[in-house]
Amino acid sequence: MQEVAEPLDGPRVRRLQAIAAEIGRWVVPGSVYERSADGCVHNTTLLLSPQGEVTASYRKVFPWRPYEVCRPGDRFVVADIPGRGRIGLSVCYDTWFPEVARHLAWMGAEVIVAPTPTPTSDRPQEIVLTRAIAIANQVYVVSVNGAAPYGTGRSLVVDPEGLVRHEAGESPTVVSDVLDLDAVDRVRRHGTAGLHRLWDQFHADDAPLELPLYGGRIAPSTWAPRRALGG
Amino acid sequence: MQEVAEPLDGPRVRRLQAIAAEIGRWVVPGSVYERSADGCVHNTTLLLSPQGEVTASYRKVFPWRPYEVCRPGDRFVVADIPGRGRIGLSVCYDTWFPEVARHLAWMGAEVIVAPTPTPTSDRPQEIVLTRAIAIANQVYVVSVNGAAPYGTGRSLVVDPEGLVRHEAGESPTVVSDVLDLDAVDRVRRHGTAGLHRLWDQFHADDAPLELPLYGGRIAPSTWAPRRALGG
Repeated sequence: MQEVAEPLDGPRVRRLQAIAAEIGRWVVPGSVYERSADGCVHNTTLLLSPQGEVTASYRKVFPWRPYEVCRPGDRFVVADIPGRGRIGLSVCYDTWFPEVARHLAWMGAEVIVAPTPTPTSDRPQEIVLTRAIAIANQVYVVSVNGAAPYGTGRSLVVDPEGLVRHEAGESPTVVSDVLDLDAVDRVRRHGTAGLHRLWDQFHADDAPLELPLYGGRIAPSTWAPRRALGG
Repeated sequence: MQEVAEPLDGPRVRRLQAIAAEIGRWVVPGSVYERSADGCVHNTTLLLSPQGEVTASYRKVFPWRPYEVCRPGDRFVVADIPGRGRIGLSVCYDTWFPEVARHLAWMGAEVIVAPTPTPTSDRPQEIVLTRAIAIANQVYVVSVNGAAPYGTGRSLVVDPEGLVRHEAGESPTVVSDVLDLDAVDRVRRHGTAGLHRLWDQFHADDAPLELPLYGGRIAPSTWAPRRALGG
C-alpha cells in the first residue's frame, strides 16, 4: 500500500482521467490508494467527469481494520451530475456502518455507489446490508464487487425500496442498467410499499430525539434530505 | 387507540403480569397502548419478570406515522435478566430506523426483541432490515410478527452474524429457540465471518468522526458497548 500510493495528481489517476475523457462518460473507477500532502495513505474513490476531470474524491471513513492500515477520511462526500442527479460515494466496509449511507442520503444523494472488492466469505452479509441502507434511506445503491478470481462477485443494483434490480454472479460480468432517479422522490412521497415515508417522520413540535452515543440528536427541523441541484 | 389506552398500572397490564407470574417466565407480551400521566398515548412494550413485575417498559420512539398517532418515546431502553444477559426493547417501525438498534447495542443489549404486528406488504423489507441491524451491531434480533389472519407472519430469530435461525410461516406458529448469548462476545472478538470486529474499529488517536445530521460525532473513546451485568 505504501509502495503504490500516489497523490491524486499522480500518474495512476491521470490514466483514469484519460480513460474517462476518451469514452466521454462519468466514471467511478473503483478506489485508489491516495498519498495525501502530509504523507498519509487513504483508500479513496473518485468521480470522474466525461471531460476527464476529478469531480469529487472521497476518503473511506471506515478502513477495513485491522487488515487495512489506511488513514480514515473525515467527511462524507456527494457530488452532482448536472442535469441528472446527486451521487454519494462510499467504499466497501463503509456499508457495514449505517451512519455513512444515512449521511449521504441526508446530503441529497439519490444513488450511492460503493466499490467493494470483497474476496472473503462475507458477501452474504454485505448483500443484506446493501439492501438495508437502500430501504432505510430510500436511495438507490450500487455495490460493485470484484469478480472471480479476485473477488466473490455478486455486484448489486438495489432500488429505493430495497428491491434487487441486478445481482451479478461470481464470474466477470458487465452489469448495465438505467436508473430512474425520480423513483427516489416517488418512494419518499408515496412511501415504501406505498406506506412508509421515512423522511416525513417528524412533526415540527416533536421534541428532538437524543442520541447519546453520538452526543447529538435527531432534530425534526433538520430531518430532511437536501435537494439535488440537477435532479 | 384513545379508547383502549390504559396506564401501566391498569387492568390490562395487571392481567399480563398475572400471566407472567403464573407461568413463571420472563415475558415480552407484544406492546400495549399506554396512557401516560399527562394524558398522552404511547405504544409501549414491556418486559415482565417471572414474579409478574414490570421490569422495564419502552415507549416506541418511531410511531408508524401518519397512521399511528401515538406520542413518540424519548429514550432507548435495555434491561438485565439477572444471570442471563441484557435485552433491548424495540417496537415494529423502530426497525426501519438504524439509530434505535445502534443505541440498544451500545447500551449493552445482546438480544433485541421487537414485537412487530405487520399486516401490510412490507414484511420482505422488514426481514432485510432485521438481519441488517443484527449484522451492523453484532446482536441477536427477535422480530415477532403477528400471524394470519391479522399479520403476515414470518417472525424471525437472527443471530449476531445475521444468519436466520428461524423464519416462521404466515400461519400461527410457536417459535422456540435457545440463544447462546455468549455468541455476541465470540462474534465481536473473532469477527463476523471471522473477519469484522465492528466495535473495535477505532484507534485511541483517531479523530472523532463528525456526524452533522445529528450535530454529534463518533468518538473513539465511547465506541464500545457497555457490558451486561448478568451476561
